[in-house]
Order: sequence, then C-alpha cells, then structure tokens
Amino acid sequence: MECCYWAPSRLPPAFSHSFSRGSGTERCYWTSPTIWRLRKRQRAYTGYDVPRCQKMFVPGFGEASPEAKAARNLQNFFTYIAVKIVLAQLESYNPEAYSELMEFISRNSLNDGDKFCGRLMRESSRHQGLALRILEVRSAYSKRDFEWENLKKLAFKMVDESNTRLMRDYVLETSHMENEG
Amino acid sequence: MECCYWAPSRLPPAFSHSFSRGSGTERCYWTSPTIWRLRKRQRAYTGYDVPRCQKMFVPGFGEASPEAKAARNLQNFFTYIAVKIVLAQLESYNPEAYSELMEFISRNSLNDGDKFCGRLMRESSRHQGLALRILEVRSAYSKRDFEWENLKKLAFKMVDESNTRLMRDYVLETSHMENEG
Repeated sequence: MECCYWAPSRLPPAFSHSFSRGSGTERCYWTSPTIWRLRKRQRAYTGYDVPRCQKMFVPGFGEASPEAKAARNLQNFFTYIAVKIVLAQLESYNPEAYSELMEFISRNSLNDGDKFCGRLMRESSRHQGLALRILEVRSAYSKRDFEWENLKKLAFKMVDESNTRLMRDYVLETSHMENEG
Repeated sequence: MECCYWAPSRLPPAFSHSFSRGSGTERCYWTSPTIWRLRKRQRAYTGYDVPRCQKMFVPGFGEASPEAKAARNLQNFFTYIAVKIVLAQLESYNPEAYSELMEFISRNSLNDGDKFCGRLMRESSRHQGLALRILEVRSAYSKRDFEWENLKKLAFKMVDESNTRLMRDYVLETSHMENEG
C-alpha cells in the first residue's frame, strides 16, 4: 500500500480498502485534495463517510508495531529498575543475598530482562527466590509506580526542546560563520 | 532515606517527613504494621492523615527519574521511526534524496537521535532539508500517531506473559528432571 505525507498527490489502489489500525502494520495519511473531493462525492452518494487512516506509514515492523517494539524495550527497562529496587532492599537487611545478586549481575548482562531472570532462576535455589522477587517487583512497578502520563509529557517536552535546540545551535553556528566570512 | 518493601519492619527516620513525589528521586513504600499503628494513633490525635508515599524506592537516578530516562530512550526511538517514515516517502518520489539519506545512515549511527540530526544538518544544504523534515516528523509522530494507551496495555501484557512463561518453563524443566531422577 502506498501512502502520502508530504508526498505529491497519489490515488490509493482501492478507495474503500480496509485499514489494519489495531496491529499498526499498515499506516497511511491521505492529504491529497483529490482524495477529499472523491471522499465528498462518495459521502454524497452513499450517505456515510468511508473509514479514514490518518497515520503516517511506518515501514519495517512486519507483524509487530512501533508500540510493541517500545513496550518490549520498556519491559527490559522495568526488569533493570526491579533489579535496582531489590538490590536497594537487600543491601540494608540481607547483605549476603545482596552480594550474591551483585556477583551474578557482574557475570550476566541485564540487556535482555527475560534471559537474565531465566538464568537467575537456574543458578541456585537462593537465586531462584531473588528471580521470583524481581519478576513480582517489575510487574508491580510497571502497573502501580511508573508514571505513564508523566512519561508522555516528558517525551513531548524533550522532543520539542531538542528540536528547538538543534535548530538554534545550527542557526547560531552558521550566522557566526557568516559574520566571520 | 530508608525504605521498606518486602523488608522487615523499620521505623522511618522522621514520621512526618516530606516526600519528593514529583521529581521521582526518592520513593518508598511503608508496609510495616508498626507504621500503620503509629499512623492510626497520629490520625486519632491530629484529626488528619499524614502524607504517605506509596512508591518503591528506585536508587541510582540522581536528579532524573525513571520516567525521564524512558522518555529519553523513546525520543531516540521516535527519531529512528521518523527516519524510516521519511525514507519510505523519499523512495517513491525522490530516489536521489533517498540514496543520499541511506548513504548518510550507513556512515552515522542512529543510536543517539539528536547527534544524528545535528550531523545531518551540517552535511550539506540538501541534507539540512532532510534533517528539518525528520525533526518535524518525529514531533508529529510522537504527538499524533504513536498510540500511548496501546503502549501501556502492551507493556502490562508483555510483563505478565513473560512472568508466567518464565515460571512455567522453570517448573516444567524441574518437574521433568525430578521425573527422570
């Protein structure tokens, strides 16, 4: 399926094709005036509006979606956070378990949270208890403690601030070069 | 500040100390029965409940918060998505710009989105146009197209499913070994 966003006017292969919004595999954004004229005409004939996809086409995610990829990364992040929480708890009241977990972390990467927990479970019966605690903490943390609304706000703010900073730095740099030249 | 979650009963250093919820630098969860008894007694005396922090303590984030770290990672992810969107648009109607961007990507890592865009801006005037488009797309995508509610649901689901799978696999593995032994 071809999509247009900042692209020249382009007619869709089939005007009333279905969109798979839920899975996020195919996304498009029809902005062409021709499409709007066609849509208006179709509405006049049929009495209802056809379903419309207002999203930009994101290629390369196959059966998954960008949200699924981001969720998978967040899952690994929650495992990392859970390990930090459990370590902080153990440090004060169970230094032996703390040392054991620290030693295990020094030998095993935390990049893949599930692999880490799987290996921790199979290390020894004591490690197994720690792994079960990490699993429970990551679930509780993601559902209760993590501030999802705050994440959204911070991401919007960061993107806006970074965009402004990048453009300002470039303008300052080039105007400085022009003044020197 | 010491915190307890699954930890033995522990009295806080000061019962009515303030909590920095907004910044997320210090988080704790008082579960001790002693605390609840003290809280009940204090409520009976003062007529109101003291402010209570229901979060687990996450160390190691300094002035930032886990949400800020996750938002920074998402920002890089949005830059990666924006590059994919722009490439898909260019491929069909501007093959020359597509090749130029692809060549630039082969030489520059996309891990740090801001660094990538900063370098792209300074490559040439044509590349500068592409960089500005990427900045605009990542902002539009994060605000309009990215399904934040879906991200949350998927993350919950993935954590739950992974926890179940890890425990089931371990139980199956050990019961198999026990049966053999």
